[in-house]
Parts: sequence; structure tokens; C-alpha cells
Amino acid sequence: MKIMFIGLGLIGGSMALALNGYPDTELYAVENNEFSRFEALNRSAVKAAWRSCDDAPLERMDVTVICLHPHEAVDFITKYAPRLKPGSLLTDVCGLKKLLYEAVNALPERQFVFLGGHPMAGREKGGFANATPDLFRGSHFILTPDETVPEEAIRLMRLLTAHMGCADIITTSPEKHDQLIAYTSQLMHVMALAICDSPLLDESYGLEGNSFRGATRVAALDPVLWTDLFHTNRDALADVTDELSDLLHEYSALLRSGDEEALLARLRTSSDRKRAFNAKCEAHTV
Amino acid sequence: MKIMFIGLGLIGGSMALALNGYPDTELYAVENNEFSRFEALNRSAVKAAWRSCDDAPLERMDVTVICLHPHEAVDFITKYAPRLKPGSLLTDVCGLKKLLYEAVNALPERQFVFLGGHPMAGREKGGFANATPDLFRGSHFILTPDETVPEEAIRLMRLLTAHMGCADIITTSPEKHDQLIAYTSQLMHVMALAICDSPLLDESYGLEGNSFRGATRVAALDPVLWTDLFHTNRDALADVTDELSDLLHEYSALLRSGDEEALLARLRTSSDRKRAFNAKCEAHTV
Repeated sequence: MKIMFIGLGLIGGSMALALNGYPDTELYAVENNEFSRFEALNRSAVKAAWRSCDDAPLERMDVTVICLHPHEAVDFITKYAPRLKPGSLLTDVCGLKKLLYEAVNALPERQFVFLGGHPMAGREKGGFANATPDLFRGSHFILTPDETVPEEAIRLMRLLTAHMGCADIITTSPEKHDQLIAYTSQLMHVMALAICDSPLLDESYGLEGNSFRGATRVAALDPVLWTDLFHTNRDALADVTDELSDLLHEYSALLRSGDEEALLARLRTSSDRKRAFNAKCEAHTV
Repeated sequence: MKIMFIGLGLIGGSMALALNGYPDTELYAVENNEFSRFEALNRSAVKAAWRSCDDAPLERMDVTVICLHPHEAVDFITKYAPRLKPGSLLTDVCGLKKLLYEAVNALPERQFVFLGGHPMAGREKGGFANATPDLFRGSHFILTPDETVPEEAIRLMRLLTAHMGCADIITTSPEKHDQLIAYTSQLMHVMALAICDSPLLDESYGLEGNSFRGATRVAALDPVLWTDLFHTNRDALADVTDELSDLLHEYSALLRSGDEEALLARLRTSSDRKRAFNAKCEAHTV
């Protein structure tokens, strides 16, 4: 089996490293950054790497994994997907799924299978220099199959992601993915940024503990990537952002009311919700 | 030197375990939970433990560390601090500092030194059963000395917290502590709760990654302790909660405007603020 990574940044590079040793498989890549190509060959992440898709043997690949920012991924689909081998699998790792299906469905014809993917893993620092085969260990890998995807393609992704160390495969629709990811991922980034926007940040060194570190870690994000993700999913993200803003106003009103009993009741209910969610997560990972 | 812990929960228990081996020192405790007393003796955390302060030899201690919820700490000060040995050190680990100074200053007379402390460490699960000597490794320990505290008391706390594995001692005033802690700690807990209040939580299993886990970890909090902390500091906490709510509204308005350039500019500025803060933290910990 021949697998081609389109892009060897943090995610593509880590996938290539994590898939090393998968039986009877050769890994290849297209990456326009010369240093990343050099490093990837040096660390034996891939067998060969090309600078541009124009020179790469896309038509000989069994699996192609797009590891680009969302709108670059759309451009790849529009321009290069027609060259993919008939019956081969095209997948991706973008944080949004609807726009990729739209791009695939807009092609005049297609003979490949498209199965969108989204590994729930990352680090603050991007690029192949920060890639590591352990990146996916214990994390979810989301797949968003539509009705055209054969069971066989899902089975292959299950084997590949298990080799990468993922905890499980979660399947959902592209639409549901984009709606829920606005809440579970994009909102966490908006909130981390908003916390750091406070003038109090400048006085806070030394008073920050693990709760602050945990909530703000992702604020040191890649602005270009996240602007693409936020802007593309802006309606869903604005909705959950407003919801959180309103919930915070409820807490401040409750605090100002001075009603300690009501505050305790709210904290009991809300912390119980989180404990129930934790229990659900633990039950799944056992 | 004899040190007495008033309370052997997560923090008191972990401090006792972390201070084991400190030269020429005997550790004691008061703890009303029989299981915790038994476990503490079993794990050799302390040399002896009493059920009640009424039976404990408070007057023979060189250092007394209050490891109780804030209003229980105030009760201890009011009722038992007059028994402390003249010249001895009284300290605590509460997440709020102003109310303890008020309680100490309300005593008719005092012959001990009071120096408020706040270790920036914790876990979701409390109690001695979850205590560990590693709890404080790499974390800040905040001290809030007023003008009555001799240099010698600060020096002793520096030695003790270094033995516990703390990264550094941060000194600030009780007032400034309470204002900033509303932002760096209490707000992170309000926000984690508010995120989990969303109806979307129920559909989100499998789509949560490290950003979600990091931001919501502390939502599984102890409602009684945090109601005490929130209610006591409610004005400062309501202010920072409203500020965050307003900042989130700015983001949703920016998203809805569809102005991608303005969104990118905001993400650049805000993520740069976090990177600068990270650099400051790294510079201090080297």
C-alpha cells in the first residue's frame, strides 16, 4: 500500500511518523518547505518527498491524506483530486468537514472514495520540527462518512488510526461535526484568547496555576489557520460564543445577588454535569 | 521544630507528605475524619494526630498551618489562635487572604506571627486519600506578608516550600492577591462550569480533545469549598466574569460581521499576548 501525505506539518508529519512500521506500506509526501522535506527524509518519516503536487505521482497512491489548512485542502481537491487513482481513498485531517465534502461534490466526476477525518490532537507549536509519533496516543479520531463511503474504507482507517495509537474512531455526519466542533474545540480557543485579552494578564505572572494554564494553553495559536477555521464556521461559532457569554452573565448576576444558597445549588448541578461527563469518558476508554 | 497541620485534606496531607524528611522537624495534625487520621499515621505523614483542636497541644507548636476551607479557617483563628505559642508562626493555604487577616486583626491581642500562604496547586479529587508529596512540584507558592511579618518568617517559608518542590515564592498584598486570584483561578472555575452548562455537552463525547479537557478539568469541583471562595470574593469575581462575557461578545460580533481581515488582526494580537506571557513564565522558571 502506498500512502501520500499532502503537507508535512505537525499533523501530517506526526501521522507519517506514527504510521512507520505499518505492514507492507510505503509512505510518501508533498511538502513545499525544503527544511521539512529534508527533516522528514532524515528522520525516515517518508520514503520520498516532492516539492509540488505537479511533480508527485498522485495517480499511483492507494491512500492520499490531505494535511493542509481547510481552504488549501479545498484547492487541492479542486485542482489535483481528478488525478487520483480510481478506487483509491482520499482523506484529510481538517478541523472542518462540510466545506471539503462540498468541494468533492462540486467535481464534475470522481472515481475515488472521499472519507473526511479529524484527529482530536494537537500542540501549541506547529510544523514538522514539532511532529512526534506519540501525538495521537489516547485521542479520538473522528470520521464523517457520507452514504458513498464503502465499509472497507472505514475498516482501513480503523486499522491505520489504531496503529497510530488513537483511543477510538468516532463517526458522525459532516454537518454535526462542524456544529459540535464549534463548541468542543473552536470555542475553547476563542475563550482562551478572550481570557488573555484582559488587562489583568499583565499583572498575573506568579498567580497562575494549572487551571489558568489548562484554560489558556491554546491561546498561543496559529492566527492564519484559526482565522480560516473560525471564519468558515462563523455562524455556529458565534452562536456558542454568545451562549457562553450569556451563561457567564448568569454567574455574575448570581454572585452579585449575594444568594449563597442559590450559588451552592448551581455549583452542585454544574459540577455534577461535569462529573457525569467524565464518568462517560472513563467508561469508554476502559 | 514542631509543625501542626490543622486539617489533613488534599493540601494539608500533601504538605505533610512533602515536608517529611525536613531536618529536625516533627509533623503533627488535627483532623476530624478518622479514616484520614488513620491513613496519615499509616503512611507516616505525621507523628501524631488528634481529632479536635481541643485535645491537641497547640501551644507547643513552632509552626501551625491551617488547611481548612476559608470560613473554617476564620473560625479556627477566632477560637484557637489565642492558644498558639508566643512568637510562633501561623500560616494557611486558603485561596483567599483578606478575610484571614481581618480575623487575625480582630483578635483582642496576639503574640504569634501571621503570614498568609496560598499554594497554586490542586487536583480534582480532594481528601487525604488523594494527597501526594509531588502535588507542589513546579508550582508557585504565594505569600501575602503585611508589615508585621518579620523577615525570618518569610525565610522559613522559603525553605519549607523549596523542600516541598515549589518553583518559587511570590509575594503580594492580601488585597492584590484576592483581586488577581479572581481572574487567574476563580474565573477559570466559573468558565469551566459555564462551558459544561451548555446543552451541547450531552452530545459531545468523542469530539472533545485536549483543549476541551484543559478548559473544563476544574468543573468537577467541590461545590461547598468553591461556593465559599466565590461568595467571599463575589465583587471581584463578578467583575472579571462580566469582563470575560463582554470580550466573548466582541468575538461573536466580529465573527458575525464576516470581516476576515479584522478577525485575523485580532487573533494575531491576542495570540501574541499569550506568547509573550508564556515567554515571561519560561524566563522565570529557567
